Amino acid sequence: MARIALDAMGGDHAPAAPVAAALLLLHEIGSAHQLQLVGRTAVIREQLSTQLAAAPASLVEAATRLEIVEAPDVVEMSDKPSVAVRGKPNSSMTVGIKLQAEGKSDAFVSAGNTGAQMAASTVFLRLHEGLSRPAISTVFPTAKQPVVVLDSGANVDCSAAELVQFARLGHVYARDILGRENPAVGLLSVGEEPEKGNAAVKEAHQLLLGAGLNFIGNVEGRDIPAGACDRGPIDVVVCDGFTGNVLLKFYESVAPMLFGMMMKNGVTKEQIGALVHSLDYAKYGGAPLLGVKGVSIICHGKSSPEAIKNGVLAGIRAVESRMSHHIGEQLAK
Amino acid sequence: MARIALDAMGGDHAPAAPVAAALLLLHEIGSAHQLQLVGRTAVIREQLSTQLAAAPASLVEAATRLEIVEAPDVVEMSDKPSVAVRGKPNSSMTVGIKLQAEGKSDAFVSAGNTGAQMAASTVFLRLHEGLSRPAISTVFPTAKQPVVVLDSGANVDCSAAELVQFARLGHVYARDILGRENPAVGLLSVGEEPEKGNAAVKEAHQLLLGAGLNFIGNVEGRDIPAGACDRGPIDVVVCDGFTGNVLLKFYESVAPMLFGMMMKNGVTKEQIGALVHSLDYAKYGGAPLLGVKGVSIICHGKSSPEAIKNGVLAGIRAVESRMSHHIGEQLAK
Repeated sequence: MARIALDAMGGDHAPAAPVAAALLLLHEIGSAHQLQLVGRTAVIREQLSTQLAAAPASLVEAATRLEIVEAPDVVEMSDKPSVAVRGKPNSSMTVGIKLQAEGKSDAFVSAGNTGAQMAASTVFLRLHEGLSRPAISTVFPTAKQPVVVLDSGANVDCSAAELVQFARLGHVYARDILGRENPAVGLLSVGEEPEKGNAAVKEAHQLLLGAGLNFIGNVEGRDIPAGACDRGPIDVVVCDGFTGNVLLKFYESVAPMLFGMMMKNGVTKEQIGALVHSLDYAKYGGAPLLGVKGVSIICHGKSSPEAIKNGVLAGIRAVESRMSHHIGEQLAK
Repeated sequence: MARIALDAMGGDHAPAAPVAAALLLLHEIGSAHQLQLVGRTAVIREQLSTQLAAAPASLVEAATRLEIVEAPDVVEMSDKPSVAVRGKPNSSMTVGIKLQAEGKSDAFVSAGNTGAQMAASTVFLRLHEGLSRPAISTVFPTAKQPVVVLDSGANVDCSAAELVQFARLGHVYARDILGRENPAVGLLSVGEEPEKGNAAVKEAHQLLLGAGLNFIGNVEGRDIPAGACDRGPIDVVVCDGFTGNVLLKFYESVAPMLFGMMMKNGVTKEQIGALVHSLDYAKYGGAPLLGVKGVSIICHGKSSPEAIKNGVLAGIRAVESRMSHHIGEQLAK
């Protein structure tokens, strides 16, 4: 049984969205796992009452299984990362993460301030040996299977050794969370030849050849939307956090731009609606902060209840698959 | 009157496409400019005969104005860049570029081997003071006006000073070729705050504040498809050649992927056809190799006659606007 702490105060639509996510989850996970709602008890209770007002008796009954963990403070979306660590020690974020450090929880999920969650996770859960910062992986929808891209923002200046660490983190994530066997790991570059790329990428290419991973060589920007290169499907794309962040934000923006153009061409909202759904990042749940000793799942600030629910399910998979343990083993190789 | 040398042997569809482009241009530019077809004379003459077989007499007459410049060798798409410089001194690429160095031509346009064109242009035209390599700019279609992104591939490891040079090159290109007044120049980063970015970007931000350009600060990946950030429209986006190349290839691939998904949703080929046209890079002509003393326009290897024609028109604009001269002035600031 996994115990998942959910930040009830985090995200643009908190506390309504996290509380709604918890109620959705009661259906899906039954009593197999324990949900811990972290935040202001009175606020959470009030939300529960409101949302349960018209609910069937079975859900009201199930909701009694939710654990509420008091945390009087709230980290705002505009707070600096250090606030969560030092300025608000009783925030839902800090209290929720510390539960793991104290052995009272197995995973933490939040749609709140990402920088603060990274800082608090790093300080209170600590990092696996050899890492200087955690990495954020993002799942990109493609023409084929979704592809894991990392780092997508935490590390902007990366050495070759760090790129190799991302490859190891991505390997474990793709295997444990996405269920890919022997994940194909590509290194993002400007050409497929090993001598193409900037200095860090060229060195990383050589290191990856001996890293014991299913390294398929360099991949290019065009291979990501395709989900494959000429050597086959891609599961993981490794890049520095600067390139990954630029790509992620570009991707999030290019689809709406194209849809806008399409509607001028007479494409209907219904036709686009189905496509938006198939590109929906929320389906893939939150992004685990990779490299911390424990499980910390980052959800988008705009997350819907469905998206937060999927973040919690990703957290459960991370706990059950022993992802953090496997990351420790993989980094020691 | 501009004299434009067109590589008749360069590109996947040579010599048919460049020769067809020249015939299209005879209509558009009349006798205002001089076209020079560079390549194997016999091959060019044969192509002209074939394409003019069913042409109206006026076009056959106009075609006599085309100058043919003999160049017996051909740089293949698979040749290494050095081949054009040292291995094939009588190739259409080398001969075409050298015409400028000899004062017999004003611009060179090719859809051939890009690396070879860069190398030959750098060696035979030389670079403006202070540059170590030329830059490639690419025009990205956006929801608003097209945006110039540079460097998009020539320089993978960039210093802050080089990013500032790209800003100067992009400023002149946007003004002289795209006709933008006082172009808005953004620096690609992972957040709009000046302290966001990798080391080179953070330093470049500070340098750009005093560069005498219309620097609008950092822009993010999402701002490119939008063509604007919250401070207004964007004309130029500055980034290192690694990030620019990854983005360009990603962009070229993501639209077809989305169109493929759309067609599964019942969107018709006609609806998509119009959109493909509005996203067509060919409309914007070739990309000038920025920083060389002269004009060297790079067209995509797959260029259609229409695309090569637009490359030549870009070359004419570069000559008439004195782009290279303005670049020299701007780099000296």
